[in-house]
Amino acid sequence: MARAFNHKHILGIDHLSAKELTLLLETSDRFKSLVGPPPIRKVPFLRNILVVMAFFEPSTRTRLSFETAAKRLTADTMSFTASTSSLVKGETLLDTCKNLEAMQPSVIIMRHKSSGAPHFVAENTGISVINAGDGYHEHPSQALLDLYTMREHKKEFNGLKVAILGDIAHSRVAHSNIIGLSKLGADVHLAGPATMIPKDVEKMGNVTVHRDIRDAVNQAEVVMLLRIQLERMDKTLFPSNREYFRFFGMDRDVLKLARKNHILMHPGPINRGVELAHELADGPSNVILEQVTNGVVVRMAMLYLVLGGSLEGEAVQ
Amino acid sequence: MARAFNHKHILGIDHLSAKELTLLLETSDRFKSLVGPPPIRKVPFLRNILVVMAFFEPSTRTRLSFETAAKRLTADTMSFTASTSSLVKGETLLDTCKNLEAMQPSVIIMRHKSSGAPHFVAENTGISVINAGDGYHEHPSQALLDLYTMREHKKEFNGLKVAILGDIAHSRVAHSNIIGLSKLGADVHLAGPATMIPKDVEKMGNVTVHRDIRDAVNQAEVVMLLRIQLERMDKTLFPSNREYFRFFGMDRDVLKLARKNHILMHPGPINRGVELAHELADGPSNVILEQVTNGVVVRMAMLYLVLGGSLEGEAVQ
Amino acid sequence: MARAFNHKHILGIDHLSAKELTLLLETSDRFKSLVGPPPIRKVPFLRNILVVMAFFEPSTRTRLSFETAAKRLTADTMSFTASTSSLVKGETLLDTCKNLEAMQPSVIIMRHKSSGAPHFVAENTGISVINAGDGYHEHPSQALLDLYTMREHKKEFNGLKVAILGDIAHSRVAHSNIIGLSKLGADVHLAGPATMIPKDVEKMGNVTVHRDIRDAVNQAEVVMLLRIQLERMDKTLFPSNREYFRFFGMDRDVLKLARKNHILMHPGPINRGVELAHELADGPSNVILEQVTNGVVVRMAMLYLVLGGSLEGEAVQ
Repeated sequence: MARAFNHKHILGIDHLSAKELTLLLETSDRFKSLVGPPPIRKVPFLRNILVVMAFFEPSTRTRLSFETAAKRLTADTMSFTASTSSLVKGETLLDTCKNLEAMQPSVIIMRHKSSGAPHFVAENTGISVINAGDGYHEHPSQALLDLYTMREHKKEFNGLKVAILGDIAHSRVAHSNIIGLSKLGADVHLAGPATMIPKDVEKMGNVTVHRDIRDAVNQAEVVMLLRIQLERMDKTLFPSNREYFRFFGMDRDVLKLARKNHILMHPGPINRGVELAHELADGPSNVILEQVTNGVVVRMAMLYLVLGGSLEGEAVQ
Repeated sequence: MARAFNHKHILGIDHLSAKELTLLLETSDRFKSLVGPPPIRKVPFLRNILVVMAFFEPSTRTRLSFETAAKRLTADTMSFTASTSSLVKGETLLDTCKNLEAMQPSVIIMRHKSSGAPHFVAENTGISVINAGDGYHEHPSQALLDLYTMREHKKEFNGLKVAILGDIAHSRVAHSNIIGLSKLGADVHLAGPATMIPKDVEKMGNVTVHRDIRDAVNQAEVVMLLRIQLERMDKTLFPSNREYFRFFGMDRDVLKLARKNHILMHPGPINRGVELAHELADGPSNVILEQVTNGVVVRMAMLYLVLGGSLEGEAVQ
Repeated sequence: MARAFNHKHILGIDHLSAKELTLLLETSDRFKSLVGPPPIRKVPFLRNILVVMAFFEPSTRTRLSFETAAKRLTADTMSFTASTSSLVKGETLLDTCKNLEAMQPSVIIMRHKSSGAPHFVAENTGISVINAGDGYHEHPSQALLDLYTMREHKKEFNGLKVAILGDIAHSRVAHSNIIGLSKLGADVHLAGPATMIPKDVEKMGNVTVHRDIRDAVNQAEVVMLLRIQLERMDKTLFPSNREYFRFFGMDRDVLKLARKNHILMHPGPINRGVELAHELADGPSNVILEQVTNGVVVRMAMLYLVLGGSLEGEAVQ
């Protein structure tokens, strides 16, 4: 029997079960084998589908990745950006999204600076919504590509030690990963400046918080760095970039504490010399560009399943 | 015999006969039934066609609607926006448009802040031009979608009482609707602040001007509100938004004067609480989102007919 | 035997032989005949191909032309612009391009304000790169469309007198044309203000520099004007536009010195009344819009050959 996905939206990792996360990862496997190594082939699974990219907050990498995913499935994409939008003319977010819905695209991929904005649109319109990042809340497609990359290298999540390092509090990437990893049975270890660790983060899942990044990295199989997102911080949470690097940046000495066959991850864009030493940004355990490549297949799976595809099925009509 | 459209351009409602308007509406019917209810299908009627969207004035809603229309017909679209253009480098509008023409797209969809700009380009180049709004002059695709929506609800234009309310003088939407409705035999009733009613507007068609919006709305079958376009006004034409709403905004009490089965229209984006009470923006007689949906099929018909399609015909070669 | 192109990149005219330039021009011929006169047909030679337009410097004309070329070959295009990019977030150019590469497009079309940027990316990533203009360095697609247009009118390059006039020093167009014309055997004559002629320009190829534009234009078969690119000059290199026109602008009197069957070229956008008299911008020997039309077929040939197509071959798989 074809395994289908019973959600119209993907708003976060939070509302997905371990089984559903696995279905997403297995469907990504299928698309990875179908499109093959370069030169990549298209697969005509979303032939009549119109996808609207509604990026109320600027993005290049995530937008291009979703657009590539849609086009590899032969869907059409259209872009809506806040700066050129009716929002400038005083329209409410909900009115804007209802207008987009009325043009009858099949799905809206939405990024917004406010946490919960995609959920609000999903609840108040009839359109299928994929969250491409909302405020400090969730970034499910990034977490799925991270999970997919870990699974390619480590096979099993059960008992996998994953260190997530940096500004946990302001990272929707960290948030979604913590939830997803916990659901799949991994052990999540966090470290970062005290001002960047949310209170009660242990309650989010199978999480241990460390003061010293050495303790988090020690014997880790996966080391995930977060970006210092200076543009997101309302106030200075750390004295300077140099001091950040000294205490929480990743260099060779710290990375030696991880398991020998560890992988080093980063959601990009990298601040070389801030959270990551220059030489490690191009180092051997680094899988950062694999993450980008996997981002396309994971997003193909998200689009396909949300629109009614099933793991073994064919084109969505 | 196939009914074809004998215009290379659609520059306004002004140059179209009642018969041609009807052909456009009937072709829209055909596309509405062909693409069906969601999930929408594409119809391969413009398979090799390249459409250039030349928006010299920013737009989201109209641009996305034309782009959706083109893609549902399997045409390709390309976007040209003034901010990234050679205009910044001192090129004339005509040189820019001749350059676009030289790349040999099949049609140019053009919005410009100057009244008459699309006509100027149509006269001085060989390319097919569709006006997507020019200054205070015309906005034919908006008028056609308004006419289409009225026809779906009211069947007949003959003797139909249509109230158009607000800033008539600065509204290309109102202008195109007044012309179109008059050609099709409707009775147009206008009301708005004295500074916002153009002189001699009665000469534009079958038009009655009222001082009090209650007289315009009384027994109307269609009530069309216009947007207060503060960004278009050179000087303050009205003391404040609150006062505008008090005298010319639509609320439940005024709307009760319309026929019971009236429809309430607005070209969007809505200023809630300025020209339209919040509760009416989501009220039962409101067809605003139907207008948006119909915008796509009407624009499909415009593109198809301008490029040589006929009502009963198939793909344009 | 099918004639193929043995370069993965087109970074400039400099690295191409006369034979390779001719292959590019002959492949352009083929596409010109295949797509035919308007209405233009698409040719499905790049059906599964994804092209990324990475314009780190704004462009309308070149971007639209490459996009049109890609779409006429049924490739998909995606746009990346610097203003919306991760570069703003402090990412290096190389990291940005490695991220684009990791999404596995088939080719990246790149414009950058720094000379050599596309070469740097080609050397340090695995992706195929087409240079769409780098700093003051090269603009190979513009030179190829210029060569193609000359060849349509003049058949032979051998001994062809070509005058290139204006700001040679700041023109990547001039630079690429000088190299290409020299390789193909033409005689290049340059004139412009002393501050705008690079030292040692004679060493670039078969080049003669003149003080007076009349000497350069005398008996020329091709007269190519350059744009005064005020936005590129760091300091004032000439007192005023009016004085520029008086000494180096093209008017009827100067143009009379050229051969009777000369052609007048300009890469656009034109500054009417600065480098070119208004009446000549629409004059009979002017082939400026033919250049734009040829730009699309030349760029089709560039994309097709770089991706592994051959002159007599069919679709790239």
